[in-house]
Amino acid sequence: MDETRIHQSRKSQVVIVGAGFGGLSAAKDLAKAPFEITLIDRNNHHLFQPLLYQVATAGLSPADIASPIRHILSGQRNLKVMLGEVTGVDLGRKEVIADGRRVPYDYLVLGTGARHAYFGHDDWAAFAPGLKTLDDATALRRRILLAFERAETEDNADERARLLTFVVIGGGPTGVEVAGAIAELAKRALASDFRSIDPRCARIILVEAAPRVLAPFDQTLSDAARHSLEQLGVEVQLGAAVTHCSDDGVRLGDSFIPARTIIWAAGVMASPAGRWLGAETDRAGRVKVRADLSVPGHPEVFVIGDTAAVTDANGTILPGIAPVAKQQGQYVARALIARQDGRTVRAFRYRDYGILATIGRSRAVAQFGKLKVTGFLAWALWSIAHVYFLIGFRNRFVVALNWAWSYLTFERGSRLITGLDTLPRDKRQGSRTELQSKAS
Amino acid sequence: MDETRIHQSRKSQVVIVGAGFGGLSAAKDLAKAPFEITLIDRNNHHLFQPLLYQVATAGLSPADIASPIRHILSGQRNLKVMLGEVTGVDLGRKEVIADGRRVPYDYLVLGTGARHAYFGHDDWAAFAPGLKTLDDATALRRRILLAFERAETEDNADERARLLTFVVIGGGPTGVEVAGAIAELAKRALASDFRSIDPRCARIILVEAAPRVLAPFDQTLSDAARHSLEQLGVEVQLGAAVTHCSDDGVRLGDSFIPARTIIWAAGVMASPAGRWLGAETDRAGRVKVRADLSVPGHPEVFVIGDTAAVTDANGTILPGIAPVAKQQGQYVARALIARQDGRTVRAFRYRDYGILATIGRSRAVAQFGKLKVTGFLAWALWSIAHVYFLIGFRNRFVVALNWAWSYLTFERGSRLITGLDTLPRDKRQGSRTELQSKAS
Repeated sequence: MDETRIHQSRKSQVVIVGAGFGGLSAAKDLAKAPFEITLIDRNNHHLFQPLLYQVATAGLSPADIASPIRHILSGQRNLKVMLGEVTGVDLGRKEVIADGRRVPYDYLVLGTGARHAYFGHDDWAAFAPGLKTLDDATALRRRILLAFERAETEDNADERARLLTFVVIGGGPTGVEVAGAIAELAKRALASDFRSIDPRCARIILVEAAPRVLAPFDQTLSDAARHSLEQLGVEVQLGAAVTHCSDDGVRLGDSFIPARTIIWAAGVMASPAGRWLGAETDRAGRVKVRADLSVPGHPEVFVIGDTAAVTDANGTILPGIAPVAKQQGQYVARALIARQDGRTVRAFRYRDYGILATIGRSRAVAQFGKLKVTGFLAWALWSIAHVYFLIGFRNRFVVALNWAWSYLTFERGSRLITGLDTLPRDKRQGSRTELQSKAS
Repeated sequence: MDETRIHQSRKSQVVIVGAGFGGLSAAKDLAKAPFEITLIDRNNHHLFQPLLYQVATAGLSPADIASPIRHILSGQRNLKVMLGEVTGVDLGRKEVIADGRRVPYDYLVLGTGARHAYFGHDDWAAFAPGLKTLDDATALRRRILLAFERAETEDNADERARLLTFVVIGGGPTGVEVAGAIAELAKRALASDFRSIDPRCARIILVEAAPRVLAPFDQTLSDAARHSLEQLGVEVQLGAAVTHCSDDGVRLGDSFIPARTIIWAAGVMASPAGRWLGAETDRAGRVKVRADLSVPGHPEVFVIGDTAAVTDANGTILPGIAPVAKQQGQYVARALIARQDGRTVRAFRYRDYGILATIGRSRAVAQFGKLKVTGFLAWALWSIAHVYFLIGFRNRFVVALNWAWSYLTFERGSRLITGLDTLPRDKRQGSRTELQSKAS
């Protein structure tokens, strides 16, 4: 009888992999549920990815947009956090494999995100790094700042021009934000800090294969965004598909842009969760989940966020943005609680509250259903939304303060070149080799 | 005649190497002097070294204690900043060699600082990293935080204890500050964030070969500091000389402390400036300068800060602290201006305004001549002095805010493990190998 009681009182084990927006909201919404939860992430921090470009362009510090996962969830007694890298799932034994350990689960939630991808051109990674992690961001910051430093001491005019040319590939929200932020960095924050070069002469080129930027937005907003970018001094090249990236620059069909700094914002590939599960995925590696976000044939396994392919009422796949991941995390929490109670929940439905993208100081676009907003008002909405959704009061406050400060002064307080120590000596001074070899 | 005029109007070239406290104050005090100044540093930022231990222990972010050199000096039109690593000085041709370039000077000021040193035990560097740069600090932060993460998933009790033991070698101000800060991190900030371990059980051991900590202070203050450390839970071992460091721990003669995290705060060695100059140095590599801080036989070359051996009126060598470097930088600026005017200045004399060391929240010691202060008052003085001397208003304000915040909440906002991306995959999870190999 004792054994039965023990058996009955054993709580279901929920393993959540990934402490992004999806995994974290699932974890939080299970706070009072009768589960034993293990949240596994390969980093010790939750990252507020929408502001990552601000770290890459020296506007914010890493700690401003990242919070220790343990700290966010320290009050949640039914949950433990594990720092570890998941490498597979044993569906038969219901175990997650992380750092060689096996972590058993009754329910599994995978929110392992996406990584930038080069779709068959992985060799471009060394020349056109992307932006998905804090380490990506500080490496990109180093690269951008070193380009100005090298230009300052460069005697050859062609090479100087090449160093002062920044090509951003991809005209989605990330590409637009990065291009706008580099333009502001060069034309305002750095303007008077050099003697041999004028950073205001830097060329920032945004390249997009489609005929407009910000494809998810209405055409009028795409046009407004392009106009704002051009006002900031960004050259926007539309309908221009990249055919090659190298240390020297970017090839677009017949034309070539000489540039030492190239930033990849053109595409992402889902995490390998689909492979771990042996599940069907779409071209971007996203798992084709059922209407309740579970994996076909495995009702105990859920996939959410950037790793899941979920269609809306119109048959369009939901975009890889924070609100989608967050709502999916909340949904899975509800679904798990319902299942424990023997209830079922209806299919997941995304509630679209609108989309926002920022271009720069006082410049943004926003779309709420049929309502479209541009300019300062859109930017104010964007700032409030982003500060509001930042995890942790301290970060919100510090970010708000930093923004207010840079808004008033045009300063960028986080212009640090770090990580030079860990580079070989011959690569420290922003030599061509360093600019090449970042992706290591 | 034209040639004469050109010759006459050619301004003297001043090259300053190192933008630490010494180099920076020399540069600033020459702002209105008729020189053309080049300031060379291998980093793009001035670092407020006295607060580096706060970054290593997750209290502050790198950007809080570092400012871009260009930005600090952007208004100074007679100066240009060069990012570069100096590797030698050609005294005959009066040229500095930086990144293979030759930068000519009429006057040279070397303020190239010091680096931690192991005095014949360089193999200890891998196991007992020191703390001199921002990269040192973020690497140490990663190491400390990973030790707790590993302990959380470690099943073996001995290994868990070893992971939760932190040995700080050296009882000078840095060692005392680091030991106190780790104790506060473990016993307050992390206290409720783990499930399998209790961070409050972490052992923090401060090892000092001399019979007391904080040797430059009066005995009563050394005793007060030791008492404060012990109140914070730090074990202080005096008269204990380290005979070996390894991945497993620290050997002190016959006894052995098993520990996975060892921090070196026991000694520094001056930069190789003495070697570049072929000048006479003391045992710590400091150049024996003349009373006007110039190098014997080379009145046009000055050495300041941690790289110079300067004795005070009692024959004691001045310590490697910010006020000494700062006053020396100011002195050299005055001396150069005087020489241009054909005047001479009297020998350098250090004005000692007192010394301060902090142990932790509300705990510090201060000594102003015969006046000795301990406890909260000393800590308040220490906080005010450090915030006041931070470069740049924004940093001062952000640091003050962060301190106020952590004082009220015991939080540590910068608990980020970064740089995992750049480690090989098998080293990412804080495996023993990572803890070993940090010094790379």
